[in-house]
Amino acid sequence: MTKQKQLKLGAIIHGVGGNISGWRHPEAITDASVNFGFYKQQAQKAEAGKFDLVFIADGLYITEKSIPHFLNRFEPITILSALAAVTTNIGLVGTLSTSYSEPFTVSRQFGSIDLISDGRAGWNVVTSPLEGSARNYSKDQHPTHPERYRIANEFLEVARGLWDSWEDDAFVRDKESGVFFDPSKMHTLNHKGEFFSVQGPLNIARSKQGQPVIFQAGASEDGRAFAAKVADAIFAGHETIEEAKAYYQDIKSRAVAYGRSADQLVILPGISPIIGHTEEEAESKYQEIANLVTIDKALDFLGRFFEHHDFSQYPLDEPFPDLGDFGSNSFRSGTDKIKQTAKEKNLTLRQVALSVATPRNEFTGTPEQVADRVELWFKEEAADGFIIAAALPKGLDDFVDLVVPILQKRGIYRKEYESDTLRGNLGVPIPANRYTKVEATI
Amino acid sequence: MTKQKQLKLGAIIHGVGGNISGWRHPEAITDASVNFGFYKQQAQKAEAGKFDLVFIADGLYITEKSIPHFLNRFEPITILSALAAVTTNIGLVGTLSTSYSEPFTVSRQFGSIDLISDGRAGWNVVTSPLEGSARNYSKDQHPTHPERYRIANEFLEVARGLWDSWEDDAFVRDKESGVFFDPSKMHTLNHKGEFFSVQGPLNIARSKQGQPVIFQAGASEDGRAFAAKVADAIFAGHETIEEAKAYYQDIKSRAVAYGRSADQLVILPGISPIIGHTEEEAESKYQEIANLVTIDKALDFLGRFFEHHDFSQYPLDEPFPDLGDFGSNSFRSGTDKIKQTAKEKNLTLRQVALSVATPRNEFTGTPEQVADRVELWFKEEAADGFIIAAALPKGLDDFVDLVVPILQKRGIYRKEYESDTLRGNLGVPIPANRYTKVEATI
Repeated sequence: MTKQKQLKLGAIIHGVGGNISGWRHPEAITDASVNFGFYKQQAQKAEAGKFDLVFIADGLYITEKSIPHFLNRFEPITILSALAAVTTNIGLVGTLSTSYSEPFTVSRQFGSIDLISDGRAGWNVVTSPLEGSARNYSKDQHPTHPERYRIANEFLEVARGLWDSWEDDAFVRDKESGVFFDPSKMHTLNHKGEFFSVQGPLNIARSKQGQPVIFQAGASEDGRAFAAKVADAIFAGHETIEEAKAYYQDIKSRAVAYGRSADQLVILPGISPIIGHTEEEAESKYQEIANLVTIDKALDFLGRFFEHHDFSQYPLDEPFPDLGDFGSNSFRSGTDKIKQTAKEKNLTLRQVALSVATPRNEFTGTPEQVADRVELWFKEEAADGFIIAAALPKGLDDFVDLVVPILQKRGIYRKEYESDTLRGNLGVPIPANRYTKVEATI
Repeated sequence: MTKQKQLKLGAIIHGVGGNISGWRHPEAITDASVNFGFYKQQAQKAEAGKFDLVFIADGLYITEKSIPHFLNRFEPITILSALAAVTTNIGLVGTLSTSYSEPFTVSRQFGSIDLISDGRAGWNVVTSPLEGSARNYSKDQHPTHPERYRIANEFLEVARGLWDSWEDDAFVRDKESGVFFDPSKMHTLNHKGEFFSVQGPLNIARSKQGQPVIFQAGASEDGRAFAAKVADAIFAGHETIEEAKAYYQDIKSRAVAYGRSADQLVILPGISPIIGHTEEEAESKYQEIANLVTIDKALDFLGRFFEHHDFSQYPLDEPFPDLGDFGSNSFRSGTDKIKQTAKEKNLTLRQVALSVATPRNEFTGTPEQVADRVELWFKEEAADGFIIAAALPKGLDDFVDLVVPILQKRGIYRKEYESDTLRGNLGVPIPANRYTKVEATI
């Protein structure tokens, strides 16, 4: 009997959350984004729910129009490290940009989290969508979308090379002979490329999962190619199962075209379940959040996808304005989708702004209904699992307490961790050290 | 009655330690530098001893001749963050180089540790002594010593500006009115200088200690000027009380010349106490460590101060070779001191190498004797306190268990923490936010 394939789960911990007015909810902890007690509680709750990972997003540029959560929040490397100390099995994944950092530092920091957590680190490789980031990093201009992906490709090549600086048995540590390490198992990378020259070796060894897990979240053409080639896991974003299936199919076939197995790459759409004891309760929970958002805030939020474009200059109840190519060097896949949906459904600016601020989603309903949707997406190959982005202050708690037991009973989700590493739980392979010679079998 | 001034204490946690062969000691945990359990135990031991802080050193370049601890160790930002989660009062100070990093990232990471730990972060600002660092960071060459300090000065100016991006009462978070923050209390830095252009604001607010504590460790002319101008605390290195007193006097008067109060700057020499129940036991503990070092390893270690210069080419038992100006763009103050001592005492290469590898120090003896030396240095104004760099695997435990109670009984060291912030315990002021208008007192 083949073992039933198991669903994977992650939880994004994002303070007061992604909804621009979610902090106004009566149950919201308003300083959540800088409240370590909150992050610890959420990570431990996700671990109690046997989640594969927690996920920390990031950004490098704010203005007074940024959403509240972005203005003042923990930096990913630091909060992941802190969470490593208070968890034991759950993976720790965070966003870090290849456009505004150095491979030696980034490899070290994720390598260090991987050792502190004993094999639970993951890096969500992003290229930074916001043009303003350049102004915080002494740069004349934000690299173009294709250039950012060229940088990202080379950056990751360097990082992976640095992570292999030490073979797994390099450290002998024999007190008697005085041999601390075997110099033949220390490797100097000597990378010289278009953007980076990095000699190495890195001053940190591999963890028991070999290398941190590589996440990717971009959905543009460049992003898809990059993900299919190098990622172990993808944090995807889709509104419908049809979209998700098409994306899943596309990415898995691209991965196979790169000579990889389709199983080596786990696709995890982000979802924001709204769970009620009845359908009506779930709907009223949605309305409660949606009604917190004023139209002014919704326009500001929409502007964020278009480099803080001022949408208050257009009439609210006329068709969404024609913006031409504007915004395409930022969140390209996001801006394209907004423009396309507005056109197809003939939406007004008000409708677009409110629906972008508080998107409806099909994971709204009773625990059984939400479990049904989860199972459907999973079995129809729209997803290998999900990342829960709670829309409500108690959203993660509800999912763990009410939906997880149903998924476990149905046999599609673990009751106990299979492994104590992130790769082990996700079921993605441990990369062999490139320098280690495999003994010939006789 | 004036309250007796209190001694400050820190502990450097450095895995198998600074002695090149210390890992061979029978009690040494050989993988200590990547063993989170060890770091946690040491930090909690220091906290039990009411220490002000733990200190994590760093470096950005290794070769196969680097000391064992440097080859494979936790990166400071990550290990400090992890320790923040398992401690409650102790300060968390780490080294980060201004020569190979970006002010926006560094300010954020230390700002984030400061919030995770609720006001206990400190940053030891260094300029990176090792020339090879450039080759790990896509740079043609390592900046010169004076240029590194020009960069450091500007870098710190930017960091301090970014840390003040949000006034302490900027976040209103009023659910009823929907006001999350007061835009008039968010500040954009717009720094444009010789090395950096950074707009801001930073996406993290100040902690209750205002800004992370600034440490400095350089002892060259540039380093002293920088420390006197900007540091809250100095990690100094001296072999004799005379040296330490001269340094203390020099730095405090420089600080006063910059318009600061002498008390605003805490000077903490690093010491490596070797404690025995009797003098003989202490001496035999010193010999035990010193005898682990072979002459070959000692020459390698000496070479490290001179850009990995190969000292095995010189005769061992003849006077220390004349190296001219060589090595002065690296650890300038260290290399100068080695050359000078060799000349003054007419030492052979063998003598220099062995004494640099395992320096003798006056903090060797019984607990009472070590406490006497500590008290003498403190009362004679050679130090405001010390950073304990354990030479033996149980060195920190010995100091906390045996010497701390004596210092407490003598009334020169705290029995309980005065504060739960690092600034509060060190007694250095909380910097006011530069933008906050002070209300006139009537």
